Amino acid sequence: MIMKEDNLADRLLDAVDKKKNPSVVGLDPRLGRIPDHVKKKVREETDDPFEAASKAILEFNKGLIDAVHEIVPAVKPQIAFYEKYGAEGIKVFIETIEYAKKKGLIVIEDVKRNDIGSTAKAYASAHLGEVDLDMFGEKSSSFNGDMVTVNAYLGYDGIEPFVELCKEYGKGIFVLDKTSNPSSSELQDLKTEDSRIIYEVMAELIDEWGEELVGERGYSSVGAVVGATYPEEAKKLRGLMPNNLFLVPGYGSQGGTADDVIPCFNDDGYGAVVNSSRGINYAYQKEPYCQEFGPEEYGKASKKAASDMKDDILASLERGGKVPESW
Amino acid sequence: MIMKEDNLADRLLDAVDKKKNPSVVGLDPRLGRIPDHVKKKVREETDDPFEAASKAILEFNKGLIDAVHEIVPAVKPQIAFYEKYGAEGIKVFIETIEYAKKKGLIVIEDVKRNDIGSTAKAYASAHLGEVDLDMFGEKSSSFNGDMVTVNAYLGYDGIEPFVELCKEYGKGIFVLDKTSNPSSSELQDLKTEDSRIIYEVMAELIDEWGEELVGERGYSSVGAVVGATYPEEAKKLRGLMPNNLFLVPGYGSQGGTADDVIPCFNDDGYGAVVNSSRGINYAYQKEPYCQEFGPEEYGKASKKAASDMKDDILASLERGGKVPESW
Repeated sequence: MIMKEDNLADRLLDAVDKKKNPSVVGLDPRLGRIPDHVKKKVREETDDPFEAASKAILEFNKGLIDAVHEIVPAVKPQIAFYEKYGAEGIKVFIETIEYAKKKGLIVIEDVKRNDIGSTAKAYASAHLGEVDLDMFGEKSSSFNGDMVTVNAYLGYDGIEPFVELCKEYGKGIFVLDKTSNPSSSELQDLKTEDSRIIYEVMAELIDEWGEELVGERGYSSVGAVVGATYPEEAKKLRGLMPNNLFLVPGYGSQGGTADDVIPCFNDDGYGAVVNSSRGINYAYQKEPYCQEFGPEEYGKASKKAASDMKDDILASLERGGKVPESW
Repeated sequence: MIMKEDNLADRLLDAVDKKKNPSVVGLDPRLGRIPDHVKKKVREETDDPFEAASKAILEFNKGLIDAVHEIVPAVKPQIAFYEKYGAEGIKVFIETIEYAKKKGLIVIEDVKRNDIGSTAKAYASAHLGEVDLDMFGEKSSSFNGDMVTVNAYLGYDGIEPFVELCKEYGKGIFVLDKTSNPSSSELQDLKTEDSRIIYEVMAELIDEWGEELVGERGYSSVGAVVGATYPEEAKKLRGLMPNNLFLVPGYGSQGGTADDVIPCFNDDGYGAVVNSSRGINYAYQKEPYCQEFGPEEYGKASKKAASDMKDDILASLERGGKVPESW
């Protein structure tokens, strides 16, 4: 067992306790929805459209992080929305991670990386560890996230390099299990000849892969992604992975409610962090927040939305008798 | 059906015919194995270690591409080895794609991206289409690869955005089916209650997803990844996906032989492109090439290795009676 200060699951749960909040904010910047004043400001700084787009994203993210960092324990930037803008986008993805960590937030990189062993090692060193710089310098961190999401379709030899770095650097992973999207059923819901469902098989693997990374608080730094949109499945998965943290997407814009996410929690009130992206990022564009806040105050709108999400989930936890004792 | 000039499968097979070669070269730059003279040259250009590492990678790749572009129809850069070096690495990944395309090569980005629909759309636009630049400019391409590898654990709604852009821009995808790594069996070999193996289920899905993208030569721009290390499985998969191209990793360093890849081909001699990365990239370090070529001549060593791979596969195709008629 890794020492408490080195175990990511312990760190994440301590942060959840500190904020009394198991909800996290996704950072999914969509250029068309970033307020004009943010974009106009950066347009004066550069003529390169990819650089301008990326700078607008960073500026927008800083506003969001400033607004929510006292409310949530973690943020979850989705790399696809940065990778869109190539190298410039990746640059601000990394700067976003750095900024969020400076504000005391745990950063879950939503990257869903996957590959065979020797290649997965390159991804793992990029996102969680340090990379070799050969004759150009000492080993150095590249993305330096706290956690990443990974896809285990290739089996354990693609996951192991991440697990090894979780041990070495005190990091964590969330392995895709039952995802929140409508067609997740196509593969994940198939039944095997011994009557297990694929997401149950995956759960057993995740439980096994995380055994060595269980921290002092009883949870492993190897967690699972379980969508808020499938509460029945979540209930079964909670039983199969008693010691694994769930990252729960699908709350809000995707249709999952606060009551839907309750089965993802254990009776001790822990075991899950619930993510909302669009619902918080663009609160200034939606009811009721747009009544009170204009685009110039998008941060305030997001802060209110993050706070409302916290209250919403806490109320459901209370109804389900799952509020942590110390809160 | 898409017009011939717009269908990627047609383009790829035309390129295979032109080179009389169904083998492709992976571009998996490992800094520690790049010859010193390449690294020393770039070290004088910058003090930034990430920039230097990335410049060395680009320089090395250009030498490889120059050496093999007359032999192979396509190259397959593996993004993990670039992403390692953050934004600088992504910059040279994109520059590598551009350079290879200028040399007339088809570029298969090995990215294994995957996500829910709205996010997959961002990945698809980044790698195969054009991205929105809002007030900063016209829509513009970002990575501009010809094909990408994708992971379908999340089902079709994460694949559809890629398929849509394949139609719109004449691009292609390879969906992971039976991967070349040892633990691919953990999930991919499970048997369902109706006695189908997961990789067979995936094959049926891939066949269906690719139907609308079958070109004039009878193959779809939606292909499958089938490892050279599993010839028995490949034989079954060839039957289940008669119109889908296979991207076949695992030849060479991973243990797959030329005879092992023959089941991936149809009787017409088409249907597969076989990849080798390490075996070609670092030929200058291995027998017999290291006898003839020093590090300064790594390109010549790689050219010889690529040519030997072509001959090796052609000899096996001949033994298997699968050489295309027109060759």
